[in-house]
Amino acid sequence: MIQVLLVHHFGLLRSGLAALLNDASDLEVRDVPWSSDPGRLRALRADVCVVDMDGPGAQDVAGMAELCRHMTSAKCGLLVLATPGRPGALRRAYDAQALGFVNKDATPQKLLEGIRQVAAGKRYVDESLAHDLLRSAEMPLTARELSVLSLAAKGATVSEIARRLHLSHGTIRNYMSAITRKTGARNRIDAIRISQGAGWV
Amino acid sequence: MIQVLLVHHFGLLRSGLAALLNDASDLEVRDVPWSSDPGRLRALRADVCVVDMDGPGAQDVAGMAELCRHMTSAKCGLLVLATPGRPGALRRAYDAQALGFVNKDATPQKLLEGIRQVAAGKRYVDESLAHDLLRSAEMPLTARELSVLSLAAKGATVSEIARRLHLSHGTIRNYMSAITRKTGARNRIDAIRISQGAGWV
Repeated sequence: MIQVLLVHHFGLLRSGLAALLNDASDLEVRDVPWSSDPGRLRALRADVCVVDMDGPGAQDVAGMAELCRHMTSAKCGLLVLATPGRPGALRRAYDAQALGFVNKDATPQKLLEGIRQVAAGKRYVDESLAHDLLRSAEMPLTARELSVLSLAAKGATVSEIARRLHLSHGTIRNYMSAITRKTGARNRIDAIRISQGAGWV
Repeated sequence: MIQVLLVHHFGLLRSGLAALLNDASDLEVRDVPWSSDPGRLRALRADVCVVDMDGPGAQDVAGMAELCRHMTSAKCGLLVLATPGRPGALRRAYDAQALGFVNKDATPQKLLEGIRQVAAGKRYVDESLAHDLLRSAEMPLTARELSVLSLAAKGATVSEIARRLHLSHGTIRNYMSAITRKTGARNRIDAIRISQGAGWV
């Protein structure tokens, strides 16, 4: 029996995904919200953890990594459900050592296939996400630029960003110009829109 | 038999929601993507249409209204699945004459309850969305301010917005200041973040 842990922030969609797997006689499914206590998650046994890459919890890279540390210790593979067109989110999942990548627009059969492959310790990539995975390698921004951008996206002013990162106003402005140029944006707001769309921040 | 039309942008979640309703002997469920041809949707018969308020299609008020016109002609009630904390999205659904409002974090039982109420021509409001519905009445921005904000959120410059709305640069700047003040934001980017979070744009 493959033990599957299903993590999704919304109860209704979580129950729905669980219902899709109910008929498979080789799976035993348990579902939990994203906000679950990591300690409690660690105590659960699972061979495959299926995680939706969207939603509040999923944006939190630390949470993803925490889940991954749990995975590793329990010899459990991470399978992510990804929205197409968001290479940044795929990159975060890849960096968090995900083994499986299934498109949220896939058929239930793909999800089953992915779960079985990951349970066998194999990598599984839904072919419809191949282009996004390729693009995810071409991250245009540096780690420092990403920090500036995420603070700006939360509505922080240049002064606030400068204070938080212990840098001068001029340096922050230079970073913002570089970000705008590198993302091919028309202005800061456009740079944030493009980067959020791609899942970089 | 209640005929249910399930509209969701992602195949996997759509199939999952359909699976939740499969066991109910009084329902007949059919599921379609958001991008479906409106003409084809209009040709379908349904007593209740269940629509996820998030995702690309749902932001498109015209699409929602189109679906609603279909609903009315077929005597079909609209039930929306809503993310809590987004009063603006609820308001759009209300304006589009939705009858049912179910929290995406609800149990499958709530969805079933909602579908049966809406099929009987009754309004159904998940009590966990009551606060958001109250807040949705307190929309702080005017229609013109919303137009300016949505263009700005797409990355348009002040000049582009001025040209699109046939207004002067100064007027656009005044609108942006009013928007920032009314949303309690620190700056334009923060105003966009707050308004998108609440589902106003």
